[in-house]
Amino acid sequence: MNFILKNENAIYYEVNFSCDNVIFLNLGSEKFFITDARYTIEAKEYAKNCEVIESANLIESVKEILKKNLIKSITFDPNDFTFFEYKNIVKDLDINFIEEINFSKTKRLIKSDYEIKLLKKASSLGKDGFKEFAKYIKNSGFKKSEKELYFNAYKFMSQKGELETSFNPIVAINENAAKPHALPTNKRLKKDDLILVDAGVKYKRYCSDRTCTSVANFDNFNFERKQTFKNKKYQKIYDIVLKAQEKSINEARAGMKACEIDKIARDFISQAGYGKYFVHSTGHGVGLDIHEFPNINSKNELIIEDNMIFTVEPGIYIPNEFGVRIEDTVYIKNGKAEIL
Amino acid sequence: MNFILKNENAIYYEVNFSCDNVIFLNLGSEKFFITDARYTIEAKEYAKNCEVIESANLIESVKEILKKNLIKSITFDPNDFTFFEYKNIVKDLDINFIEEINFSKTKRLIKSDYEIKLLKKASSLGKDGFKEFAKYIKNSGFKKSEKELYFNAYKFMSQKGELETSFNPIVAINENAAKPHALPTNKRLKKDDLILVDAGVKYKRYCSDRTCTSVANFDNFNFERKQTFKNKKYQKIYDIVLKAQEKSINEARAGMKACEIDKIARDFISQAGYGKYFVHSTGHGVGLDIHEFPNINSKNELIIEDNMIFTVEPGIYIPNEFGVRIEDTVYIKNGKAEIL
Repeated sequence: MNFILKNENAIYYEVNFSCDNVIFLNLGSEKFFITDARYTIEAKEYAKNCEVIESANLIESVKEILKKNLIKSITFDPNDFTFFEYKNIVKDLDINFIEEINFSKTKRLIKSDYEIKLLKKASSLGKDGFKEFAKYIKNSGFKKSEKELYFNAYKFMSQKGELETSFNPIVAINENAAKPHALPTNKRLKKDDLILVDAGVKYKRYCSDRTCTSVANFDNFNFERKQTFKNKKYQKIYDIVLKAQEKSINEARAGMKACEIDKIARDFISQAGYGKYFVHSTGHGVGLDIHEFPNINSKNELIIEDNMIFTVEPGIYIPNEFGVRIEDTVYIKNGKAEIL
Repeated sequence: MNFILKNENAIYYEVNFSCDNVIFLNLGSEKFFITDARYTIEAKEYAKNCEVIESANLIESVKEILKKNLIKSITFDPNDFTFFEYKNIVKDLDINFIEEINFSKTKRLIKSDYEIKLLKKASSLGKDGFKEFAKYIKNSGFKKSEKELYFNAYKFMSQKGELETSFNPIVAINENAAKPHALPTNKRLKKDDLILVDAGVKYKRYCSDRTCTSVANFDNFNFERKQTFKNKKYQKIYDIVLKAQEKSINEARAGMKACEIDKIARDFISQAGYGKYFVHSTGHGVGLDIHEFPNINSKNELIIEDNMIFTVEPGIYIPNEFGVRIEDTVYIKNGKAEIL
């Protein structure tokens, strides 16, 4: 198969190396990694089973290689190239460019054993980060602002800067947690507050993703799933979200449609009377990108299979009051979902 | 003038607000900020002089507005839209889409007084970050790895997480500093080492950018320009780079071509015998993006004018030995360059 890629993670998936200025060509069994002089030394060392081409003009080099190899048709993702790039690549070439949207993400839907190993390691490092952050909150979190807490979430999740985080952590207290993508503010953490933390770390480019909602009890602060809130409404909503999340994980099966997994969480929350406050989809695939396939939403008819990896993260958001989200990343093994 | 934008900073420049899912239309004197439900509340509060349109399908909304307003032609940057987006926007529309590459960056070449104020504030915060980081190195930097130092550079540059950094800081010791874009390693800082730090912070989205090269003298560690290296070769190269940098700033004038400013630094370094080790351009514009116009390189014939803001950052990189770069961001005021 012939295809052309520009996305950094899509290329990493093909040859185990990538950089921020590369075009990759797969022409039958031949692969070309076309990059500039800054990256060729490392590319030659690390990029597997491909020829590294040094070029000061990647697009011109692509065209030359396509012509030299007498290519008649090639697949590309129309969102992977800007209009300018596309126009210049196709110009003066008599080649059929076949559009296939999300072409690389679709290839990456089923994870290899090696990828699962890396994703497990990322998850394990992420859990370590949550544990260290919990110790910090227990000892020093009282009266700290969301911004200070955010910085420390970043600190512990990145293993003090050793690793990249999967995304900027979310740290939100009480009413700020009612915004699914809250930015940290100057609001300070008090005893018995609710605190939501959504964070992940990358291991060899593979992402972890997890959300915990906890009570700010400084005697015994933790990110365990069992939480005892003083505020009864917090507790009620927390218990609904937790049950919805556990039920979706326990009942998810290979052979189901993605939308059926979404439906388990959504129906449970709706039956408890909070359906309209569950404002996002139940989950998303995780891999080299923090958002991959399968999407676990109400419309996706894709059949779930072994070795797919995705988040299960229902939430209830009561505007101006508080929000609860509980998220684990799971993988399908022997037909069932296991927390990574 | 009619134009369409998708780039977040380009849109911020127009209406003082932006988000990660918006298309902006400027149709004569009417402006439209088209975004999804997550952002409409804040957009209505903060986006200036424009109509906020809530849409679940931004591209369809754009087409409707273009049709309704009987638009005949509209300017866009062909790198601002993917091929997929472009194709869907133009489909079934009888409108002339005029390509103008770097259209927004060209508009943003001359900074307003308000922008200069924000860029000055960012620079001042960046300098504070360098000072705090210098204190940290003086007190605790001995034997710390580049990775630990990197994390602390991030910590102080971000004002402990209060602000975003302009980019991931570069912290490189001795031979690692010979790579202009070095990634932090486990290499540890010893007495009399050379340490290069390139870092910046954003204030209200505007970037600071500065590079210091210093001697690891733990009695009196600082990021001042006067540095006394024990290693004579370090000192020799440091002095050449510093003089090249100061000469470029002192001699830069409005009315010169950008390439003439590059030439001042490049000729000085070449005459000292190190021309082939100055492997990048002398500088770049700074604003909402960390890399804006004007490019200060050997080919750019653009005339420098008052209120342009750019870096002056010559460097000498001796492979496998060490590298020195010294960078300030300057602005042109009354015809001369002043450090911001």
